[in-house]
Amino acid sequence: MLKLYHWEPNANSGKPILAMEEKELDFESHYLDLLNFDQHSPEYLKINPLGTIPALVHDDRMLYESTAIMEYVDAAFPGPQLRPSDPEERWRMRWWMKFCDEYYAPSASMLGWNAFIGPSVRDKDPEELKRKIEAIPQPERQVAWKKAIYGLFTPEELAESARRVAFGAQIFEENLKRHSWLAGETFSLADINAFNLVYFMPANPAGHVSPEKTPCTMEWLYKMYERPASKRAWSRGKTMTADRLTHLQRPTVAA
Amino acid sequence: MLKLYHWEPNANSGKPILAMEEKELDFESHYLDLLNFDQHSPEYLKINPLGTIPALVHDDRMLYESTAIMEYVDAAFPGPQLRPSDPEERWRMRWWMKFCDEYYAPSASMLGWNAFIGPSVRDKDPEELKRKIEAIPQPERQVAWKKAIYGLFTPEELAESARRVAFGAQIFEENLKRHSWLAGETFSLADINAFNLVYFMPANPAGHVSPEKTPCTMEWLYKMYERPASKRAWSRGKTMTADRLTHLQRPTVAA
Repeated sequence: MLKLYHWEPNANSGKPILAMEEKELDFESHYLDLLNFDQHSPEYLKINPLGTIPALVHDDRMLYESTAIMEYVDAAFPGPQLRPSDPEERWRMRWWMKFCDEYYAPSASMLGWNAFIGPSVRDKDPEELKRKIEAIPQPERQVAWKKAIYGLFTPEELAESARRVAFGAQIFEENLKRHSWLAGETFSLADINAFNLVYFMPANPAGHVSPEKTPCTMEWLYKMYERPASKRAWSRGKTMTADRLTHLQRPTVAA
Repeated sequence: MLKLYHWEPNANSGKPILAMEEKELDFESHYLDLLNFDQHSPEYLKINPLGTIPALVHDDRMLYESTAIMEYVDAAFPGPQLRPSDPEERWRMRWWMKFCDEYYAPSASMLGWNAFIGPSVRDKDPEELKRKIEAIPQPERQVAWKKAIYGLFTPEELAESARRVAFGAQIFEENLKRHSWLAGETFSLADINAFNLVYFMPANPAGHVSPEKTPCTMEWLYKMYERPASKRAWSRGKTMTADRLTHLQRPTVAA
Protein backbone atom coordinates (compact mmCIF):
# COMPACT_ATOMS: atom_id res chain seq x y z
CA MET A 1 0.00 0.00 0.00
CA LEU A 2 1.46 3.28 -1.14
CA LYS A 3 -0.42 6.56 -0.60
CA LEU A 4 0.86 10.04 -1.33
CA TYR A 5 -0.75 13.14 0.18
CA HIS A 6 0.11 16.11 -2.00
CA TRP A 7 -0.95 19.42 -3.54
CA GLU A 8 -0.27 20.47 -7.15
CA PRO A 9 2.63 18.60 -8.83
CA ASN A 10 5.10 21.41 -8.15
CA ALA A 11 7.37 22.63 -5.35
CA ASN A 12 7.58 20.21 -2.39
CA SER A 13 4.61 18.13 -3.53
CA GLY A 14 6.10 17.78 -7.01
CA LYS A 15 9.32 16.24 -5.72
CA PRO A 16 8.02 12.81 -4.62
CA ILE A 17 5.41 12.77 -7.42
CA LEU A 18 8.09 13.16 -10.07
CA ALA A 19 10.44 10.68 -8.36
CA MET A 20 7.62 8.11 -8.23
CA GLU A 21 6.70 8.75 -11.87
CA GLU A 22 10.36 8.28 -12.87
CA LYS A 23 10.29 4.89 -11.15
CA GLU A 24 6.86 4.15 -12.69
CA LEU A 25 5.33 3.29 -9.30
CA ASP A 26 1.62 2.86 -8.76
CA PHE A 27 0.38 4.93 -5.85
CA GLU A 28 -2.87 6.17 -4.42
CA SER A 29 -3.01 9.94 -4.87
CA HIS A 30 -4.64 12.07 -2.16
CA TYR A 31 -4.91 15.65 -3.38
CA LEU A 32 -5.00 18.31 -0.65
CA ASP A 33 -5.88 21.89 -1.53
CA LEU A 34 -3.11 23.99 0.04
CA LEU A 35 -5.08 27.18 -0.55
CA ASN A 36 -8.02 25.73 1.37
CA PHE A 37 -5.67 24.77 4.26
CA ASP A 38 -6.61 21.07 3.84
CA GLN A 39 -3.16 20.23 5.25
CA HIS A 40 -4.16 21.56 8.68
CA SER A 41 -7.46 19.64 8.96
CA PRO A 42 -7.86 17.28 11.93
CA GLU A 43 -8.05 14.30 9.53
CA TYR A 44 -4.73 15.11 7.89
CA LEU A 45 -3.01 15.92 11.20
CA LYS A 46 -3.55 12.25 12.05
CA ILE A 47 -1.35 11.44 9.04
CA ASN A 48 1.23 14.19 9.64
CA PRO A 49 0.98 15.99 13.01
CA LEU A 50 3.16 18.83 11.72
CA GLY A 51 0.60 19.63 9.00
CA THR A 52 3.07 19.79 6.13
CA ILE A 53 2.65 18.26 2.69
CA PRO A 54 3.68 15.98 1.08
CA ALA A 55 3.43 12.84 3.20
CA LEU A 56 3.91 9.26 2.05
CA VAL A 57 2.27 6.27 3.68
CA HIS A 58 3.91 2.95 2.80
CA ASP A 59 2.22 0.05 4.58
CA ASP A 60 2.46 1.14 8.24
CA ARG A 61 5.25 3.65 7.63
CA MET A 62 4.52 7.38 7.71
CA LEU A 63 7.12 9.45 5.89
CA TYR A 64 7.48 13.26 5.74
CA GLU A 65 9.85 15.85 4.25
CA SER A 66 9.88 15.84 0.47
CA THR A 67 13.63 15.37 -0.04
CA ALA A 68 13.90 12.56 2.52
CA ILE A 69 10.80 10.94 0.96
CA MET A 70 12.49 10.98 -2.46
CA GLU A 71 15.57 9.26 -1.01
CA TYR A 72 13.27 6.68 0.60
CA VAL A 73 11.35 6.05 -2.62
CA ASP A 74 14.57 5.43 -4.52
CA ALA A 75 15.99 3.10 -1.85
CA ALA A 76 12.81 1.14 -1.17
CA PHE A 77 11.51 0.42 -4.69
CA PRO A 78 12.77 -1.14 -7.91
CA GLY A 79 12.99 0.80 -11.15
CA PRO A 80 15.64 3.15 -12.53
CA GLN A 81 18.09 4.26 -9.85
CA LEU A 82 17.78 7.99 -9.20
CA ARG A 83 20.96 8.36 -7.16
CA PRO A 84 24.36 8.22 -8.92
CA SER A 85 26.64 5.31 -7.98
CA ASP A 86 29.77 7.46 -7.97
CA PRO A 87 30.38 8.96 -4.47
CA GLU A 88 31.43 12.35 -5.89
CA GLU A 89 28.28 12.63 -8.01
CA ARG A 90 26.22 11.52 -5.05
CA TRP A 91 27.87 14.24 -2.93
CA ARG A 92 27.10 16.80 -5.63
CA MET A 93 23.45 15.60 -5.75
CA ARG A 94 23.17 16.18 -1.99
CA TRP A 95 24.98 19.52 -2.14
CA TRP A 96 22.43 20.78 -4.67
CA MET A 97 19.44 19.39 -2.81
CA LYS A 98 20.67 21.12 0.34
CA PHE A 99 21.28 24.36 -1.53
CA CYS A 100 17.79 24.19 -3.05
CA ASP A 101 16.03 23.19 0.18
CA GLU A 102 17.76 25.63 2.52
CA TYR A 103 18.60 28.62 0.36
CA TYR A 104 17.24 28.83 -3.18
CA ALA A 105 13.71 27.44 -2.60
CA PRO A 106 12.87 29.34 0.63
CA SER A 107 13.83 32.61 -1.08
CA ALA A 108 11.88 31.87 -4.25
CA SER A 109 9.05 30.65 -2.05
CA MET A 110 8.87 33.89 -0.06
CA LEU A 111 8.57 35.84 -3.32
CA GLY A 112 5.96 33.40 -4.63
CA TRP A 113 3.94 33.46 -1.43
CA ASN A 114 4.04 37.24 -1.41
CA ALA A 115 2.99 37.53 -5.06
CA PHE A 116 0.57 34.59 -5.45
CA ILE A 117 -0.32 32.51 -2.41
CA GLY A 118 -1.09 35.46 -0.11
CA PRO A 119 -3.29 37.34 -2.61
CA SER A 120 -5.17 34.18 -3.64
CA VAL A 121 -6.47 33.50 -0.12
CA ARG A 122 -6.63 37.12 1.12
CA ASP A 123 -10.25 37.66 0.05
CA LYS A 124 -11.69 34.81 2.08
CA ASP A 125 -13.93 35.72 5.02
CA PRO A 126 -11.65 37.40 7.65
CA GLU A 127 -13.02 35.35 10.56
CA GLU A 128 -12.61 32.11 8.64
CA LEU A 129 -9.02 33.08 7.74
CA LYS A 130 -8.26 33.80 11.39
CA ARG A 131 -9.56 30.36 12.39
CA LYS A 132 -7.57 28.70 9.59
CA ILE A 133 -4.37 30.40 10.76
CA GLU A 134 -4.98 29.43 14.39
CA ALA A 135 -5.34 25.79 13.31
CA ILE A 136 -1.79 25.67 11.92
CA PRO A 137 0.19 23.42 14.29
CA GLN A 138 3.67 24.93 13.83
CA PRO A 139 4.07 28.51 15.16
CA GLU A 140 6.63 29.40 12.47
CA ARG A 141 4.20 28.30 9.77
CA GLN A 142 1.51 30.51 11.36
CA VAL A 143 3.93 33.44 11.06
CA ALA A 144 4.73 32.65 7.42
CA TRP A 145 1.04 32.33 6.49
CA LYS A 146 0.19 35.58 8.30
CA LYS A 147 2.95 37.44 6.49
CA ALA A 148 1.76 36.10 3.14
CA ILE A 149 -1.94 36.68 3.74
CA TYR A 150 -1.68 40.15 5.22
CA GLY A 151 1.26 41.30 3.06
CA LEU A 152 3.65 41.63 6.00
CA PHE A 153 6.95 40.58 4.44
CA THR A 154 9.27 43.57 4.94
CA PRO A 155 10.99 45.25 1.97
CA GLU A 156 14.32 44.07 3.45
CA GLU A 157 13.15 40.46 3.58
CA LEU A 158 11.87 40.58 0.01
CA ALA A 159 15.06 42.27 -1.24
CA GLU A 160 17.25 39.65 0.46
CA SER A 161 15.17 36.85 -1.08
CA ALA A 162 15.42 38.48 -4.50
CA ARG A 163 19.22 38.70 -4.09
CA ARG A 164 19.42 35.02 -3.14
CA VAL A 165 17.26 33.95 -6.08
CA ALA A 166 19.56 35.87 -8.46
CA PHE A 167 22.61 34.23 -6.90
CA GLY A 168 20.98 30.80 -7.08
CA ALA A 169 20.17 31.23 -10.77
CA GLN A 170 23.77 32.26 -11.43
CA ILE A 171 25.54 29.34 -9.74
CA PHE A 172 22.95 26.97 -11.20
CA GLU A 173 24.00 28.10 -14.69
CA GLU A 174 27.71 27.85 -13.79
CA ASN A 175 27.22 24.24 -12.71
CA LEU A 176 25.23 23.29 -15.82
CA LYS A 177 27.96 24.75 -18.02
CA ARG A 178 30.21 21.97 -16.71
CA HIS A 179 27.74 19.10 -16.30
CA SER A 180 24.76 17.61 -18.20
CA TRP A 181 22.79 17.18 -14.98
CA LEU A 182 23.11 18.84 -11.59
CA ALA A 183 25.08 15.99 -10.01
CA GLY A 184 27.32 15.43 -13.04
CA GLU A 185 26.70 13.10 -15.98
CA THR A 186 23.94 11.16 -14.19
CA PHE A 187 20.29 12.21 -13.89
CA SER A 188 19.41 12.22 -10.19
CA LEU A 189 17.07 13.30 -7.40
CA ALA A 190 18.83 16.68 -7.50
CA ASP A 191 17.36 17.32 -10.97
CA ILE A 192 13.90 16.30 -9.77
CA ASN A 193 14.26 18.50 -6.69
CA ALA A 194 15.45 21.53 -8.63
CA PHE A 195 13.00 21.19 -11.51
CA ASN A 196 10.15 21.72 -9.07
CA LEU A 197 11.70 25.04 -8.14
CA VAL A 198 13.29 26.32 -11.33
CA TYR A 199 10.53 25.42 -13.82
CA PHE A 200 8.78 28.71 -13.14
CA MET A 201 11.84 30.96 -13.26
CA PRO A 202 11.70 31.72 -17.02
CA ALA A 203 8.20 33.16 -16.47
CA ASN A 204 9.40 35.32 -13.58
CA PRO A 205 9.63 38.99 -14.57
CA ALA A 206 12.94 39.32 -12.67
CA GLY A 207 14.42 37.56 -15.70
CA HIS A 208 17.25 35.69 -14.00
CA VAL A 209 16.58 32.56 -16.07
CA SER A 210 16.14 33.06 -19.81
CA PRO A 211 17.44 31.70 -23.13
CA GLU A 212 19.74 34.73 -23.40
CA LYS A 213 21.14 34.85 -19.84
CA THR A 214 21.17 31.16 -18.88
CA PRO A 215 21.22 28.96 -22.00
CA CYS A 216 22.48 25.89 -20.11
CA THR A 217 19.69 26.14 -17.54
CA MET A 218 17.13 26.50 -20.36
CA GLU A 219 18.53 23.44 -22.16
CA TRP A 220 18.28 21.50 -18.87
CA LEU A 221 14.67 22.71 -18.39
CA TYR A 222 13.73 21.61 -21.92
CA LYS A 223 15.30 18.17 -21.28
CA MET A 224 13.48 17.85 -17.96
CA TYR A 225 10.15 18.84 -19.51
CA GLU A 226 10.58 16.31 -22.33
CA ARG A 227 10.85 13.37 -19.94
CA PRO A 228 7.69 11.21 -20.01
CA ALA A 229 7.67 11.17 -16.19
CA SER A 230 7.39 14.97 -16.13
CA LYS A 231 4.38 14.83 -18.44
CA ARG A 232 2.70 12.22 -16.24
CA ALA A 233 3.47 14.20 -13.06
CA TRP A 234 2.08 17.45 -14.43
CA SER A 235 -1.07 15.77 -15.73
CA ARG A 236 -2.01 15.29 -12.05
CA GLY A 237 -2.49 19.05 -11.61
CA LYS A 238 -6.01 20.30 -10.87
CA THR A 239 -5.48 24.02 -11.29
CA MET A 240 -3.93 26.26 -13.91
CA THR A 241 -0.45 25.49 -12.53
CA ALA A 242 0.36 23.16 -15.39
CA ASP A 243 -0.18 25.94 -17.90
CA ARG A 244 2.88 27.64 -16.45
CA LEU A 245 5.00 25.09 -18.24
CA THR A 246 4.35 26.24 -21.80
CA HIS A 247 7.60 28.23 -21.68
CA LEU A 248 9.46 24.94 -21.27
CA GLN A 249 8.55 23.79 -24.74
CA ARG A 250 11.83 23.65 -26.70
CA PRO A 251 11.61 26.27 -29.46
CA THR A 252 11.51 24.73 -32.93
CA VAL A 253 14.29 25.91 -35.20
CA ALA A 254 12.95 27.85 -38.20
CA ALA A 255 13.62 26.11 -41.52
CA MET B 1 45.16 11.98 -0.24
CA LEU B 2 42.56 13.04 2.28
CA LYS B 3 42.65 16.49 3.89
CA LEU B 4 40.07 17.97 6.21
CA TYR B 5 39.88 21.69 6.89
CA HIS B 6 38.10 22.22 10.18
CA TRP B 7 37.77 24.19 13.42
CA GLU B 8 37.19 22.65 16.87
CA PRO B 9 35.72 19.12 16.81
CA ASN B 10 32.19 20.36 17.43
CA ALA B 11 29.25 21.76 15.45
CA ASN B 12 29.71 21.55 11.66
CA SER B 13 33.44 20.78 11.89
CA GLY B 14 32.80 17.98 14.36
CA LYS B 15 30.45 16.14 11.99
CA PRO B 16 32.99 14.90 9.39
CA ILE B 17 35.71 14.52 12.07
CA LEU B 18 33.55 12.14 14.08
CA ALA B 19 32.36 10.28 10.96
CA MET B 20 35.98 9.78 9.86
CA GLU B 21 37.02 8.66 13.34
CA GLU B 22 34.14 6.15 13.40
CA LYS B 23 35.49 4.74 10.14
CA GLU B 24 39.07 4.91 11.49
CA LEU B 25 40.31 6.83 8.45
CA ASP B 26 43.72 8.50 8.31
CA PHE B 27 43.45 12.09 7.23
CA GLU B 28 45.55 15.22 7.19
CA SER B 29 44.04 17.70 9.64
CA HIS B 30 44.12 21.42 8.81
CA TYR B 31 42.93 23.40 11.80
CA LEU B 32 41.41 26.82 11.02
CA ASP B 33 40.70 29.26 13.82
CA LEU B 34 37.09 30.35 13.26
CA LEU B 35 37.45 33.19 15.77
CA ASN B 36 40.45 34.53 13.83
CA PHE B 37 38.39 34.37 10.58
CA ASP B 38 40.94 31.94 9.04
CA GLN B 39 38.07 30.57 6.93
CA HIS B 40 37.88 33.83 4.95
CA SER B 41 41.60 34.08 4.15
CA PRO B 42 42.59 34.23 0.47
CA GLU B 43 44.45 30.90 0.85
CA TYR B 44 41.38 29.10 2.17
CA LEU B 45 39.04 30.70 -0.36
CA LYS B 46 41.06 28.81 -3.00
CA ILE B 47 39.91 25.60 -1.27
CA ASN B 48 36.30 26.73 -0.64
CA PRO B 49 35.23 29.95 -2.40
CA LEU B 50 32.22 30.28 -0.09
CA GLY B 51 34.51 30.51 2.94
CA THR B 52 32.66 27.94 5.05
CA ILE B 53 34.21 25.16 7.11
CA PRO B 54 34.55 22.21 7.06
CA ALA B 55 35.90 21.27 3.62
CA LEU B 56 37.24 17.89 2.55
CA VAL B 57 39.81 17.41 -0.20
CA HIS B 58 39.98 13.85 -1.50
CA ASP B 59 42.53 13.52 -4.32
CA ASP B 60 41.28 16.18 -6.77
CA ARG B 61 37.78 16.38 -5.32
CA MET B 62 36.75 19.39 -3.24
CA LEU B 63 33.78 18.70 -1.00
CA TYR B 64 31.79 21.12 1.17
CA GLU B 65 28.75 21.09 3.48
CA SER B 66 29.25 18.99 6.58
CA THR B 67 26.23 16.68 6.20
CA ALA B 68 26.89 16.00 2.51
CA ILE B 69 30.59 15.39 3.37
CA MET B 70 29.57 12.78 5.95
CA GLU B 71 27.41 10.98 3.38
CA TYR B 72 30.38 11.07 0.97
CA VAL B 73 32.81 9.72 3.57
CA ASP B 74 30.51 6.81 4.33
CA ALA B 75 29.92 5.98 0.66
CA ALA B 76 33.53 6.38 -0.52
CA PHE B 77 35.51 4.54 2.18
CA PRO B 78 35.54 1.11 3.81
CA GLY B 79 34.96 0.61 7.52
CA PRO B 80 31.77 0.32 9.55
CA GLN B 81 28.70 1.48 7.60
CA LEU B 82 27.22 4.63 9.13
CA ARG B 83 23.93 4.53 7.20
CA PRO B 84 21.26 1.95 8.09
CA SER B 85 20.44 -0.62 5.41
CA ASP B 86 16.71 -0.49 6.12
CA PRO B 87 14.99 2.19 3.98
CA GLU B 88 12.75 3.34 6.84
CA GLU B 89 15.71 3.80 9.20
CA ARG B 90 17.59 5.58 6.43
CA TRP B 91 14.62 7.90 5.94
CA ARG B 92 14.55 8.59 9.67
CA MET B 93 18.31 9.29 9.62
CA ARG B 94 17.75 11.91 6.88
CA TRP B 95 14.67 13.37 8.56
CA TRP B 96 16.71 14.02 11.70
CA MET B 97 19.69 15.41 9.83
CA LYS B 98 17.40 17.80 8.00
CA PHE B 99 15.66 18.80 11.23
CA CYS B 100 19.02 19.43 12.91
CA ASP B 101 20.56 21.26 9.94
CA GLU B 102 17.59 23.48 9.09
CA TYR B 103 15.82 24.05 12.38
CA TYR B 104 17.45 22.88 15.61
CA ALA B 105 21.10 23.78 14.89
CA PRO B 106 20.52 27.27 13.38
CA SER B 107 18.43 28.22 16.43
CA ALA B 108 20.94 26.84 18.94
CA SER B 109 23.68 28.44 16.86
CA MET B 110 22.09 31.91 17.03
CA LEU B 111 21.94 31.66 20.82
CA GLY B 112 25.53 30.38 20.94
CA TRP B 113 26.82 33.07 18.61
CA ASN B 114 25.03 35.70 20.64
CA ALA B 115 26.36 34.40 23.98
CA PHE B 116 29.87 33.21 23.06
CA ILE B 117 31.14 33.79 19.54
CA GLY B 118 30.19 37.49 19.36
CA PRO B 119 31.62 38.43 22.77
CA SER B 120 34.83 36.48 22.16
CA VAL B 121 35.79 38.50 19.06
CA ARG B 122 34.12 41.81 20.04
CA ASP B 123 37.21 43.25 21.72
CA LYS B 124 39.48 42.97 18.70
CA ASP B 125 40.62 46.23 17.08
CA PRO B 126 37.48 47.82 15.50
CA GLU B 127 39.19 48.57 12.19
CA GLU B 128 40.56 45.04 11.95
CA LEU B 129 37.10 43.63 12.70
CA LYS B 130 35.59 45.79 9.97
CA ARG B 131 38.14 44.49 7.45
CA LYS B 132 37.53 40.90 8.57
CA ILE B 133 33.77 41.30 8.08
CA GLU B 134 34.23 42.87 4.65
CA ALA B 135 36.34 39.87 3.60
CA ILE B 136 33.44 37.42 4.18
CA PRO B 137 32.38 36.25 0.72
CA GLN B 138 28.69 35.51 1.41
CA PRO B 139 26.53 38.57 2.22
CA GLU B 140 24.28 36.57 4.56
CA ARG B 141 27.31 35.41 6.53
CA GLN B 142 28.45 39.05 6.81
CA VAL B 143 25.04 39.88 8.30
CA ALA B 144 25.23 36.97 10.77
CA TRP B 145 28.75 37.91 11.89
CA LYS B 146 27.78 41.59 12.29
CA LYS B 147 24.78 40.67 14.41
CA ALA B 148 26.90 38.41 16.62
CA ILE B 149 29.82 40.82 16.96
CA TYR B 150 27.81 43.96 17.58
CA GLY B 151 25.02 42.27 19.57
CA LEU B 152 22.33 43.03 16.98
CA PHE B 153 20.12 39.96 17.21
CA THR B 154 16.67 41.31 18.12
CA PRO B 155 14.82 40.10 21.24
CA GLU B 156 12.21 38.59 18.90
CA GLU B 157 14.84 36.62 16.96
CA LEU B 158 16.42 35.32 20.16
CA ALA B 159 13.04 34.40 21.66
CA GLU B 160 12.03 32.50 18.52
CA SER B 161 15.34 30.61 18.55
CA ALA B 162 14.89 29.78 22.23
CA ARG B 163 11.38 28.47 21.47
CA ARG B 164 12.72 26.28 18.65
CA VAL B 165 15.53 24.89 20.80
CA ALA B 166 13.00 23.91 23.48
CA PHE B 167 10.80 22.24 20.86
CA GLY B 168 13.83 20.45 19.37
CA ALA B 169 14.86 19.09 22.78
CA GLN B 170 11.34 17.84 23.36
CA ILE B 171 10.83 15.91 20.10
CA PHE B 172 14.40 14.59 20.40
CA GLU B 173 13.47 13.02 23.74
CA GLU B 174 10.18 11.67 22.33
CA ASN B 175 12.07 9.92 19.54
CA LEU B 176 14.70 8.45 21.88
CA LYS B 177 11.96 7.04 24.10
CA ARG B 178 11.04 4.79 21.17
CA HIS B 179 14.46 4.08 19.63
CA SER B 180 18.02 3.34 20.81
CA TRP B 181 19.49 5.67 18.21
CA LEU B 182 17.98 8.55 16.26
CA ALA B 183 17.29 6.52 13.12
CA GLY B 184 16.01 3.46 15.00
CA GLU B 185 18.03 0.49 16.25
CA THR B 186 21.07 1.34 14.10
CA PHE B 187 23.78 3.89 14.95
CA SER B 188 24.02 6.31 12.02
CA LEU B 189 25.18 9.65 10.65
CA ALA B 190 22.13 11.19 12.33
CA ASP B 191 23.63 10.42 15.75
CA ILE B 192 26.97 11.91 14.69
CA ASN B 193 25.21 14.97 13.31
CA ALA B 194 23.08 15.54 16.38
CA PHE B 195 25.81 14.80 18.94
CA ASN B 196 27.74 17.79 17.63
CA LEU B 197 24.75 19.97 18.42
CA VAL B 198 23.22 18.41 21.54
CA TYR B 199 26.41 17.63 23.52
CA PHE B 200 26.39 21.14 25.01
CA MET B 201 22.69 21.30 25.89
CA PRO B 202 23.00 19.83 29.43
CA ALA B 203 25.37 22.72 30.27
CA ASN B 204 22.93 25.28 28.89
CA PRO B 205 21.22 27.24 31.68
CA ALA B 206 17.88 27.03 29.80
CA GLY B 207 17.79 23.45 31.13
CA HIS B 208 15.89 21.80 28.29
CA VAL B 209 18.18 18.74 28.39
CA SER B 210 18.90 17.25 31.82
CA PRO B 211 18.84 13.88 33.63
CA GLU B 212 15.50 14.86 35.17
CA LYS B 213 13.71 16.27 32.10
CA THR B 214 15.19 14.17 29.29
CA PRO B 215 16.57 10.88 30.65
CA CYS B 216 16.58 9.17 27.24
CA THR B 217 18.55 12.01 25.65
CA MET B 218 21.04 11.88 28.54
CA GLU B 219 21.46 8.11 28.14
CA TRP B 220 22.08 8.64 24.43
CA LEU B 221 24.64 11.38 25.20
CA TYR B 222 26.48 9.08 27.66
CA LYS B 223 26.57 6.31 25.02
CA MET B 224 27.83 8.72 22.38
CA TYR B 225 30.53 10.08 24.67
CA GLU B 226 31.70 6.57 25.56
CA ARG B 227 32.45 5.66 21.94
CA PRO B 228 36.21 5.51 21.27
CA ALA B 229 35.70 7.58 18.11
CA SER B 230 34.22 10.44 20.18
CA LYS B 231 37.27 10.42 22.45
CA ARG B 232 39.61 10.54 19.44
CA ALA B 233 37.58 13.31 17.78
CA TRP B 234 37.53 15.50 20.88
CA SER B 235 41.24 15.03 21.50
CA ARG B 236 41.75 17.13 18.35
CA GLY B 237 40.42 20.23 20.10
CA LYS B 238 42.87 23.08 20.69
CA THR B 239 40.77 25.26 22.98
CA MET B 240 38.79 24.70 26.16
CA THR B 241 35.87 23.36 24.08
CA ALA B 242 36.62 19.77 25.05
CA ASP B 243 36.20 20.63 28.74
CA ARG B 244 32.55 21.23 28.02
CA LEU B 245 32.06 17.48 27.81
CA THR B 246 32.64 16.66 31.47
CA HIS B 247 28.86 16.67 31.99
CA LEU B 248 28.65 13.73 29.56
CA GLN B 249 30.46 11.41 31.94
CA ARG B 250 27.92 8.80 33.04
CA PRO B 251 27.32 9.25 36.78
CA THR B 252 28.61 6.31 38.81
CA VAL B 253 25.97 4.64 40.95
CA ALA B 254 26.74 4.98 44.69
CA ALA B 255 27.42 1.63 46.39
